[in-house]
Amino acid sequence: MSTPSQRLAELGIKLPPVPKPVASYVPCARHGDLLLLSGQIPTRDGKVIYSGQVGREVRLDDAQQAARLCAINAMAVGAEAAGGIDRIANVLKVVVYVSSHEGFTDQHLVANGSSDLLKDVFGDAGRHARAAVGVAHLPLNSAVEIDVTFVVKT
Amino acid sequence: MSTPSQRLAELGIKLPPVPKPVASYVPCARHGDLLLLSGQIPTRDGKVIYSGQVGREVRLDDAQQAARLCAINAMAVGAEAAGGIDRIANVLKVVVYVSSHEGFTDQHLVANGSSDLLKDVFGDAGRHARAAVGVAHLPLNSAVEIDVTFVVKT
Amino acid sequence: MSTPSQRLAELGIKLPPVPKPVASYVPCARHGDLLLLSGQIPTRDGKVIYSGQVGREVRLDDAQQAARLCAINAMAVGAEAAGGIDRIANVLKVVVYVSSHEGFTDQHLVANGSSDLLKDVFGDAGRHARAAVGVAHLPLNSAVEIDVTFVVKT
Repeated sequence: MSTPSQRLAELGIKLPPVPKPVASYVPCARHGDLLLLSGQIPTRDGKVIYSGQVGREVRLDDAQQAARLCAINAMAVGAEAAGGIDRIANVLKVVVYVSSHEGFTDQHLVANGSSDLLKDVFGDAGRHARAAVGVAHLPLNSAVEIDVTFVVKT
Repeated sequence: MSTPSQRLAELGIKLPPVPKPVASYVPCARHGDLLLLSGQIPTRDGKVIYSGQVGREVRLDDAQQAARLCAINAMAVGAEAAGGIDRIANVLKVVVYVSSHEGFTDQHLVANGSSDLLKDVFGDAGRHARAAVGVAHLPLNSAVEIDVTFVVKT
Repeated sequence: MSTPSQRLAELGIKLPPVPKPVASYVPCARHGDLLLLSGQIPTRDGKVIYSGQVGREVRLDDAQQAARLCAINAMAVGAEAAGGIDRIANVLKVVVYVSSHEGFTDQHLVANGSSDLLKDVFGDAGRHARAAVGVAHLPLNSAVEIDVTFVVKT
Protein backbone atom coordinates (compact mmCIF):
# COMPACT_ATOMS: atom_id res chain seq x y z
CA MET A 1 0.00 0.00 0.00
CA SER A 2 1.49 3.30 -1.04
CA THR A 3 0.78 6.48 0.91
CA PRO A 4 -1.09 9.50 -0.43
CA SER A 5 2.20 11.40 -0.76
CA GLN A 6 3.68 8.53 -2.79
CA ARG A 7 0.61 8.43 -5.02
CA LEU A 8 0.76 12.17 -5.59
CA ALA A 9 4.39 11.76 -6.64
CA GLU A 10 3.48 8.88 -8.97
CA LEU A 11 0.78 11.07 -10.53
CA GLY A 12 3.28 13.90 -10.94
CA ILE A 13 1.22 16.21 -8.74
CA LYS A 14 2.97 18.74 -6.53
CA LEU A 15 0.63 20.40 -4.06
CA PRO A 16 0.77 24.19 -4.44
CA PRO A 17 1.41 26.58 -1.57
CA VAL A 18 -1.72 27.71 0.24
CA PRO A 19 -2.33 31.45 0.00
CA LYS A 20 -2.27 33.21 3.35
CA PRO A 21 -5.80 34.16 4.42
CA VAL A 22 -6.36 37.87 4.03
CA ALA A 23 -10.00 38.12 4.96
CA SER A 24 -12.42 37.32 7.73
CA TYR A 25 -12.54 33.69 6.77
CA VAL A 26 -9.92 30.94 6.66
CA PRO A 27 -8.96 28.25 4.14
CA CYS A 28 -9.73 25.53 6.68
CA ALA A 29 -11.53 25.32 10.00
CA ARG A 30 -10.88 22.39 12.30
CA HIS A 31 -13.35 20.79 14.70
CA GLY A 32 -12.21 17.65 16.48
CA ASP A 33 -10.77 15.44 13.77
CA LEU A 34 -12.74 17.18 11.02
CA LEU A 35 -11.23 19.64 8.58
CA LEU A 36 -13.89 21.80 6.97
CA LEU A 37 -12.45 23.60 3.98
CA SER A 38 -13.45 26.80 2.30
CA GLY A 39 -14.69 26.45 -1.25
CA GLN A 40 -11.86 25.65 -3.66
CA ILE A 41 -11.83 27.04 -7.19
CA PRO A 42 -9.68 26.03 -10.17
CA THR A 43 -6.78 28.43 -9.62
CA ARG A 44 -3.12 27.91 -10.37
CA ASP A 45 -0.52 30.48 -9.30
CA GLY A 46 -3.35 32.70 -8.10
CA LYS A 47 -5.21 32.76 -11.43
CA VAL A 48 -8.49 31.05 -12.32
CA ILE A 49 -7.57 28.60 -15.08
CA TYR A 50 -11.05 27.40 -16.06
CA SER A 51 -13.64 30.16 -16.23
CA GLY A 52 -17.12 30.46 -17.65
CA GLN A 53 -20.22 28.30 -17.67
CA VAL A 54 -19.98 24.63 -18.49
CA GLY A 55 -22.06 23.92 -21.57
CA ARG A 56 -21.12 27.29 -23.09
CA GLU A 57 -17.50 28.52 -22.75
CA VAL A 58 -16.31 25.39 -20.97
CA ARG A 59 -16.54 21.88 -22.44
CA LEU A 60 -17.16 18.79 -20.34
CA ASP A 61 -13.59 17.54 -20.50
CA ASP A 62 -12.22 20.90 -19.46
CA ALA A 63 -14.77 21.09 -16.66
CA GLN A 64 -13.51 17.73 -15.42
CA GLN A 65 -9.97 19.11 -15.44
CA ALA A 66 -11.27 22.11 -13.50
CA ALA A 67 -12.79 19.79 -10.90
CA ARG A 68 -9.49 17.91 -10.72
CA LEU A 69 -7.61 21.17 -10.15
CA CYS A 70 -10.06 22.11 -7.39
CA ALA A 71 -9.29 18.78 -5.72
CA ILE A 72 -5.54 19.46 -5.95
CA ASN A 73 -6.08 22.81 -4.26
CA ALA A 74 -8.25 21.15 -1.62
CA MET A 75 -5.55 18.58 -0.91
CA ALA A 76 -3.02 21.41 -0.55
CA VAL A 77 -5.22 23.14 2.04
CA GLY A 78 -5.94 19.89 3.85
CA ALA A 79 -2.28 18.88 3.90
CA GLU A 80 -1.21 22.20 5.38
CA ALA A 81 -3.90 22.03 8.06
CA ALA A 82 -3.20 18.37 8.90
CA GLY A 83 0.57 18.61 8.90
CA GLY A 84 1.09 16.76 5.63
CA ILE A 85 -1.13 14.88 3.22
CA ASP A 86 -0.35 11.56 4.89
CA ARG A 87 -1.94 12.85 8.10
CA ILE A 88 -5.35 12.86 6.39
CA ALA A 89 -7.29 9.75 7.37
CA ASN A 90 -10.04 9.96 4.78
CA VAL A 91 -12.18 12.14 2.56
CA LEU A 92 -15.64 12.43 4.11
CA LYS A 93 -17.76 14.67 1.92
CA VAL A 94 -17.46 16.68 -1.30
CA VAL A 95 -20.04 19.09 -2.68
CA VAL A 96 -19.30 20.02 -6.29
CA TYR A 97 -20.81 23.24 -7.64
CA VAL A 98 -20.72 23.47 -11.43
CA SER A 99 -21.37 26.80 -13.17
CA SER A 100 -23.97 25.53 -15.62
CA HIS A 101 -25.32 26.98 -18.82
CA GLU A 102 -28.96 26.44 -19.81
CA GLY A 103 -29.48 22.78 -20.59
CA PHE A 104 -26.28 21.37 -19.08
CA THR A 105 -27.20 18.45 -16.83
CA ASP A 106 -23.98 16.41 -16.56
CA GLN A 107 -22.81 17.88 -13.26
CA HIS A 108 -22.12 14.36 -11.97
CA LEU A 109 -19.65 13.76 -14.80
CA VAL A 110 -17.88 17.01 -14.01
CA ALA A 111 -17.73 16.01 -10.35
CA ASN A 112 -15.92 12.80 -11.28
CA GLY A 113 -12.90 14.98 -12.02
CA SER A 114 -12.63 15.63 -8.29
CA SER A 115 -13.81 12.26 -7.04
CA ASP A 116 -11.58 10.16 -9.26
CA LEU A 117 -8.44 12.02 -8.24
CA LEU A 118 -9.28 11.77 -4.53
CA LYS A 119 -9.82 8.03 -4.96
CA ASP A 120 -6.54 7.72 -6.87
CA VAL A 121 -4.60 9.53 -4.14
CA PHE A 122 -6.26 8.12 -1.01
CA GLY A 123 -7.45 4.73 -2.25
CA ASP A 124 -10.53 3.43 -0.46
CA ALA A 125 -10.08 6.19 2.13
CA GLY A 126 -10.74 8.62 -0.69
CA ARG A 127 -14.27 7.36 -1.32
CA HIS A 128 -16.60 10.06 -0.06
CA ALA A 129 -20.23 11.08 0.03
CA ARG A 130 -20.90 13.57 -2.73
CA ALA A 131 -23.45 16.01 -4.06
CA ALA A 132 -23.14 17.66 -7.48
CA VAL A 133 -25.29 20.63 -8.42
CA GLY A 134 -25.44 23.11 -11.28
CA VAL A 135 -25.32 26.73 -10.16
CA ALA A 136 -25.77 30.01 -12.01
CA HIS A 137 -22.32 31.49 -11.49
CA LEU A 138 -19.31 31.10 -9.22
CA PRO A 139 -16.81 33.57 -7.75
CA LEU A 140 -14.35 35.05 -10.26
CA ASN A 141 -16.34 33.27 -12.99
CA SER A 142 -14.88 29.92 -11.95
CA ALA A 143 -16.28 26.96 -13.85
CA VAL A 144 -16.29 24.71 -10.77
CA GLU A 145 -16.06 25.11 -6.99
CA ILE A 146 -15.77 22.27 -4.49
CA ASP A 147 -16.51 22.14 -0.76
CA VAL A 148 -14.53 19.37 0.94
CA THR A 149 -14.53 17.83 4.42
CA PHE A 150 -11.51 15.72 5.41
CA VAL A 151 -10.93 13.61 8.51
CA VAL A 152 -7.45 13.80 10.07
CA LYS A 153 -5.61 11.00 11.82
CA THR A 154 -5.64 11.34 15.59
CA MET B 1 -45.06 5.61 19.90
CA SER B 2 -44.67 3.75 16.65
CA THR B 3 -41.24 3.18 15.12
CA PRO B 4 -40.06 4.61 11.81
CA SER B 5 -40.45 1.19 10.18
CA GLN B 6 -44.03 1.01 11.43
CA ARG B 7 -44.75 4.50 10.14
CA LEU B 8 -43.30 3.66 6.74
CA ALA B 9 -45.60 0.65 6.62
CA GLU B 10 -48.60 2.77 7.62
CA LEU B 11 -47.73 5.21 4.84
CA GLY B 12 -47.43 2.37 2.36
CA ILE B 13 -43.79 3.18 1.65
CA LYS B 14 -41.36 0.39 0.87
CA LEU B 15 -37.75 1.54 0.84
CA PRO B 16 -36.11 0.68 -2.47
CA PRO B 17 -32.84 -1.26 -2.77
CA VAL B 18 -29.75 0.95 -2.77
CA PRO B 19 -27.75 0.72 -6.00
CA LYS B 20 -24.25 -0.64 -5.53
CA PRO B 21 -21.68 2.15 -5.81
CA VAL B 22 -19.83 1.97 -9.09
CA ALA B 23 -17.72 5.10 -8.89
CA SER B 24 -15.15 6.83 -6.74
CA TYR B 25 -17.78 8.00 -4.31
CA VAL B 26 -20.22 6.19 -2.04
CA PRO B 27 -23.93 6.58 -1.23
CA CYS B 28 -23.12 7.22 2.42
CA ALA B 29 -20.01 8.08 4.43
CA ARG B 30 -20.00 7.49 8.18
CA HIS B 31 -18.13 9.53 10.78
CA GLY B 32 -18.79 8.69 14.40
CA ASP B 33 -22.54 8.55 14.70
CA LEU B 34 -23.07 10.74 11.65
CA LEU B 35 -24.20 9.43 8.28
CA LEU B 36 -23.40 11.88 5.51
CA LEU B 37 -25.28 10.93 2.38
CA SER B 38 -24.54 11.60 -1.24
CA GLY B 39 -27.08 13.78 -3.02
CA GLN B 40 -30.33 11.96 -3.63
CA ILE B 41 -32.35 12.58 -6.78
CA PRO B 42 -35.95 11.59 -7.60
CA THR B 43 -35.26 8.20 -9.14
CA ARG B 44 -37.39 5.07 -9.03
CA ASP B 45 -36.14 1.77 -10.44
CA GLY B 46 -33.06 3.60 -11.68
CA LYS B 47 -34.96 6.22 -13.68
CA VAL B 48 -35.38 9.92 -12.91
CA ILE B 49 -39.14 10.36 -12.41
CA TYR B 50 -39.31 14.14 -12.12
CA SER B 51 -37.09 15.98 -14.58
CA GLY B 52 -36.83 19.57 -15.74
CA GLN B 53 -36.91 22.95 -14.08
CA VAL B 54 -39.56 23.76 -11.53
CA GLY B 55 -41.63 26.69 -12.78
CA ARG B 56 -41.34 25.47 -16.36
CA GLU B 57 -41.67 21.72 -17.07
CA VAL B 58 -42.37 20.82 -13.44
CA ARG B 59 -45.28 22.20 -11.42
CA LEU B 60 -45.05 22.92 -7.70
CA ASP B 61 -47.08 19.90 -6.64
CA ASP B 62 -44.97 17.58 -8.77
CA ALA B 63 -41.82 19.18 -7.40
CA GLN B 64 -43.05 18.42 -3.89
CA GLN B 65 -43.57 14.80 -4.92
CA ALA B 66 -40.04 14.85 -6.33
CA ALA B 67 -38.70 16.08 -2.98
CA ARG B 68 -40.71 13.36 -1.23
CA LEU B 69 -39.20 10.72 -3.52
CA CYS B 70 -35.72 12.06 -2.81
CA ALA B 71 -36.44 11.64 0.91
CA ILE B 72 -37.56 8.03 0.35
CA ASN B 73 -34.30 7.35 -1.46
CA ALA B 74 -32.37 9.04 1.35
CA MET B 75 -34.10 6.87 3.93
CA ALA B 76 -33.21 3.80 1.90
CA VAL B 77 -29.54 4.77 1.88
CA GLY B 78 -29.59 5.69 5.56
CA ALA B 79 -31.35 2.48 6.54
CA GLU B 80 -28.83 0.34 4.68
CA ALA B 81 -25.91 2.16 6.27
CA ALA B 82 -27.42 2.12 9.78
CA GLY B 83 -28.60 -1.49 9.71
CA GLY B 84 -32.28 -0.68 9.37
CA ILE B 85 -34.39 2.48 9.46
CA ASP B 86 -35.10 2.04 13.18
CA ARG B 87 -31.37 2.37 13.88
CA ILE B 88 -31.51 6.02 12.80
CA ALA B 89 -31.70 8.28 15.85
CA ASN B 90 -32.66 11.50 14.11
CA VAL B 91 -32.48 13.60 10.99
CA LEU B 92 -29.93 16.36 11.52
CA LYS B 93 -29.72 18.45 8.35
CA VAL B 94 -31.26 18.58 4.88
CA VAL B 95 -30.17 20.83 2.03
CA VAL B 96 -32.74 20.90 -0.76
CA TYR B 97 -31.58 21.95 -4.22
CA VAL B 98 -34.43 22.83 -6.58
CA SER B 99 -33.81 23.15 -10.33
CA SER B 100 -35.48 26.54 -10.75
CA HIS B 101 -36.72 28.33 -13.82
CA GLU B 102 -36.51 32.12 -14.07
CA GLY B 103 -38.85 33.63 -11.52
CA PHE B 104 -39.54 30.55 -9.41
CA THR B 105 -39.01 31.47 -5.74
CA ASP B 106 -41.00 28.84 -3.81
CA GLN B 107 -38.08 26.53 -3.10
CA HIS B 108 -39.17 26.32 0.55
CA LEU B 109 -42.53 24.89 -0.49
CA VAL B 110 -40.82 22.30 -2.65
CA ALA B 111 -38.56 21.40 0.26
CA ASN B 112 -41.59 20.68 2.43
CA GLY B 113 -42.07 17.56 0.32
CA SER B 114 -38.91 16.17 1.91
CA SER B 115 -39.31 17.67 5.36
CA ASP B 116 -42.92 16.65 5.90
CA LEU B 117 -42.23 13.02 5.05
CA LEU B 118 -39.20 12.87 7.33
CA LYS B 119 -41.30 14.33 10.15
CA ASP B 120 -44.08 11.83 9.43
CA VAL B 121 -41.69 8.89 9.55
CA PHE B 122 -39.42 9.91 12.44
CA GLY B 123 -41.77 12.12 14.48
CA ASP B 124 -39.98 14.80 16.48
CA ALA B 125 -36.67 13.08 15.70
CA GLY B 126 -37.36 13.92 12.05
CA ARG B 127 -37.28 17.65 12.64
CA HIS B 128 -34.08 18.91 11.06
CA ALA B 129 -32.22 22.07 10.15
CA ARG B 130 -32.83 22.88 6.52
CA ALA B 131 -31.68 25.07 3.68
CA ALA B 132 -33.58 25.33 0.39
CA VAL B 133 -32.01 26.94 -2.67
CA GLY B 134 -32.86 27.26 -6.33
CA VAL B 135 -30.14 26.08 -8.66
CA ALA B 136 -29.69 26.25 -12.43
CA HIS B 137 -29.71 22.55 -13.24
CA LEU B 138 -29.20 19.21 -11.52
CA PRO B 139 -27.62 15.93 -12.63
CA LEU B 140 -29.65 13.97 -15.20
CA ASN B 141 -32.02 16.95 -15.37
CA SER B 142 -33.48 16.05 -11.97
CA ALA B 143 -36.03 18.54 -10.66
CA VAL B 144 -34.80 18.22 -7.07
CA GLU B 145 -31.75 16.92 -5.23
CA ILE B 146 -31.39 16.60 -1.46
CA ASP B 147 -28.32 16.34 0.74
CA VAL B 148 -29.13 14.63 4.04
CA THR B 149 -27.25 14.04 7.30
CA PHE B 150 -28.63 11.42 9.68
CA VAL B 151 -27.53 10.52 13.20
CA VAL B 152 -27.43 6.81 14.05
CA LYS B 153 -28.17 5.22 17.41
CA THR B 154 -25.04 4.14 19.26
CA MET C 1 -11.03 41.22 25.15
CA SER C 2 -14.66 42.15 24.85
CA THR C 3 -17.35 39.49 24.57
CA PRO C 4 -19.58 38.93 21.54
CA SER C 5 -22.51 40.50 23.42
CA GLN C 6 -20.39 43.58 24.17
CA ARG C 7 -19.31 43.82 20.53
CA LEU C 8 -22.89 43.54 19.33
CA ALA C 9 -23.80 46.41 21.66
CA GLU C 10 -20.86 48.47 20.38
CA LEU C 11 -22.04 47.85 16.81
CA GLY C 12 -25.56 48.87 17.76
CA ILE C 13 -26.94 45.48 16.80
CA LYS C 14 -29.85 44.02 18.73
CA LEU C 15 -30.52 40.40 17.89
CA PRO C 16 -34.12 39.95 16.77
CA PRO C 17 -36.50 37.38 18.27
CA VAL C 18 -36.42 34.02 16.57
CA PRO C 19 -39.75 33.05 14.96
CA LYS C 20 -41.30 29.93 16.44
CA PRO C 21 -40.94 26.99 14.07
CA VAL C 22 -44.25 26.15 12.41
CA ALA C 23 -43.17 23.44 10.03
CA SER C 24 -41.50 20.07 9.93
CA TYR C 25 -38.07 21.61 10.29
CA VAL C 26 -36.41 23.70 12.99
CA PRO C 27 -34.28 26.86 13.01
CA CYS C 28 -31.39 24.99 14.60
CA ALA C 29 -30.46 21.35 15.14
CA ARG C 30 -27.86 20.47 17.76
CA HIS C 31 -25.43 17.56 17.61
CA GLY C 32 -22.82 17.39 20.36
CA ASP C 33 -21.35 20.87 20.51
CA LEU C 34 -22.38 21.69 16.96
CA LEU C 35 -25.29 23.95 16.08
CA LEU C 36 -26.44 23.40 12.51
CA LEU C 37 -28.73 26.21 11.45
CA SER C 38 -31.44 26.33 8.87
CA GLY C 39 -30.80 28.69 5.97
CA GLN C 40 -31.11 32.33 7.02
CA ILE C 41 -32.52 34.92 4.65
CA PRO C 42 -32.43 38.73 4.88
CA THR C 43 -35.65 39.26 6.81
CA ARG C 44 -36.48 41.93 9.36
CA ASP C 45 -39.73 41.85 11.31
CA GLY C 46 -40.79 38.90 9.20
CA LYS C 47 -40.32 40.61 5.84
CA VAL C 48 -37.61 39.99 3.23
CA ILE C 49 -35.72 43.29 3.02
CA TYR C 50 -33.44 42.52 0.09
CA SER C 51 -35.13 40.68 -2.75
CA GLY C 52 -34.24 39.97 -6.36
CA GLN C 53 -31.15 38.84 -8.20
CA VAL C 54 -27.82 40.45 -7.50
CA GLY C 55 -26.53 42.05 -10.68
CA ARG C 56 -30.05 43.03 -11.71
CA GLU C 57 -32.46 44.37 -9.05
CA VAL C 58 -29.88 44.25 -6.26
CA ARG C 59 -26.56 46.12 -6.33
CA LEU C 60 -23.38 44.75 -4.79
CA ASP C 61 -23.45 47.04 -1.77
CA ASP C 62 -27.05 46.17 -1.01
CA ALA C 63 -26.24 42.49 -1.44
CA GLN C 64 -23.49 42.86 1.14
CA GLN C 65 -26.02 44.43 3.51
CA ALA C 66 -28.31 41.50 2.79
CA ALA C 67 -25.53 39.09 3.72
CA ARG C 68 -24.90 41.10 6.89
CA LEU C 69 -28.58 40.88 7.81
CA CYS C 70 -28.53 37.12 7.22
CA ALA C 71 -25.62 36.90 9.66
CA ILE C 72 -27.56 38.90 12.28
CA ASN C 73 -30.46 36.49 11.92
CA ALA C 74 -28.07 33.55 12.19
CA MET C 75 -26.59 34.96 15.38
CA ALA C 76 -30.09 35.35 16.79
CA VAL C 77 -30.87 31.70 16.09
CA GLY C 78 -27.51 30.56 17.43
CA ALA C 79 -27.83 32.66 20.57
CA GLU C 80 -31.26 31.27 21.35
CA ALA C 81 -30.08 27.71 20.85
CA ALA C 82 -26.88 28.18 22.84
CA GLY C 83 -28.40 30.12 25.72
CA GLY C 84 -26.95 33.48 24.74
CA ILE C 85 -24.50 34.71 22.13
CA ASP C 86 -21.61 34.48 24.60
CA ARG C 87 -22.18 30.74 24.84
CA ILE C 88 -21.05 30.33 21.23
CA ALA C 89 -17.43 29.20 21.11
CA ASN C 90 -16.75 29.85 17.44
CA VAL C 91 -18.12 30.05 13.94
CA LEU C 92 -17.15 26.90 12.05
CA LYS C 93 -18.59 27.10 8.55
CA VAL C 94 -20.68 29.44 6.41
CA VAL C 95 -22.09 28.68 2.97
CA VAL C 96 -23.34 31.82 1.23
CA TYR C 97 -25.87 31.42 -1.57
CA VAL C 98 -26.24 34.53 -3.73
CA SER C 99 -29.19 34.88 -6.11
CA SER C 100 -27.17 35.80 -9.19
CA HIS C 101 -28.18 37.38 -12.46
CA GLU C 102 -26.45 36.40 -15.69
CA GLY C 103 -22.87 37.56 -15.56
CA PHE C 104 -22.60 38.35 -11.84
CA THR C 105 -19.46 36.68 -10.50
CA ASP C 106 -18.66 38.59 -7.31
CA GLN C 107 -20.33 36.18 -4.89
CA HIS C 108 -17.24 36.27 -2.69
CA LEU C 109 -17.62 40.02 -2.21
CA VAL C 110 -21.26 39.58 -1.26
CA ALA C 111 -20.26 36.89 1.21
CA ASN C 112 -17.90 39.30 2.94
CA GLY C 113 -21.01 41.02 4.30
CA SER C 114 -21.61 37.95 6.45
CA SER C 115 -18.00 37.05 7.15
CA ASP C 116 -16.86 40.51 8.19
CA LEU C 117 -19.66 40.91 10.71
CA LEU C 118 -19.01 37.48 12.23
CA LYS C 119 -15.34 38.39 12.56
CA ASP C 120 -16.25 41.74 14.12
CA VAL C 121 -18.52 40.12 16.69
CA PHE C 122 -16.53 36.99 17.57
CA GLY C 123 -12.97 38.15 16.85
CA ASP C 124 -10.63 35.35 15.82
CA ALA C 125 -13.29 32.84 16.91
CA GLY C 126 -15.45 34.27 14.13
CA ARG C 127 -13.05 33.21 11.39
CA HIS C 128 -14.75 30.34 9.55
CA ALA C 129 -14.42 28.14 6.52
CA ARG C 130 -16.61 29.50 3.75
CA ALA C 131 -18.06 28.71 0.37
CA ALA C 132 -19.82 31.31 -1.78
CA VAL C 133 -21.89 30.29 -4.79
CA GLY C 134 -24.27 32.00 -7.19
CA VAL C 135 -27.65 30.33 -7.44
CA ALA C 136 -30.63 30.89 -9.73
CA HIS C 137 -33.20 31.94 -7.15
CA LEU C 138 -33.81 31.75 -3.41
CA PRO C 139 -36.94 31.30 -1.29
CA LEU C 140 -39.26 34.33 -1.22
CA ASN C 141 -37.00 35.92 -3.83
CA SER C 142 -34.32 36.59 -1.21
CA ALA C 143 -31.12 38.06 -2.59
CA VAL C 144 -28.92 36.03 -0.23
CA GLU C 145 -29.24 32.97 1.99
CA ILE C 146 -26.60 31.69 4.41
CA ASP C 147 -26.10 28.28 5.99
CA VAL C 148 -24.14 28.54 9.25
CA THR C 149 -22.58 26.04 11.64
CA PHE C 150 -21.62 27.28 15.11
CA VAL C 151 -19.74 25.50 17.90
CA VAL C 152 -21.08 26.01 21.43
CA LYS C 153 -19.04 26.14 24.61
CA THR C 154 -19.23 22.96 26.63
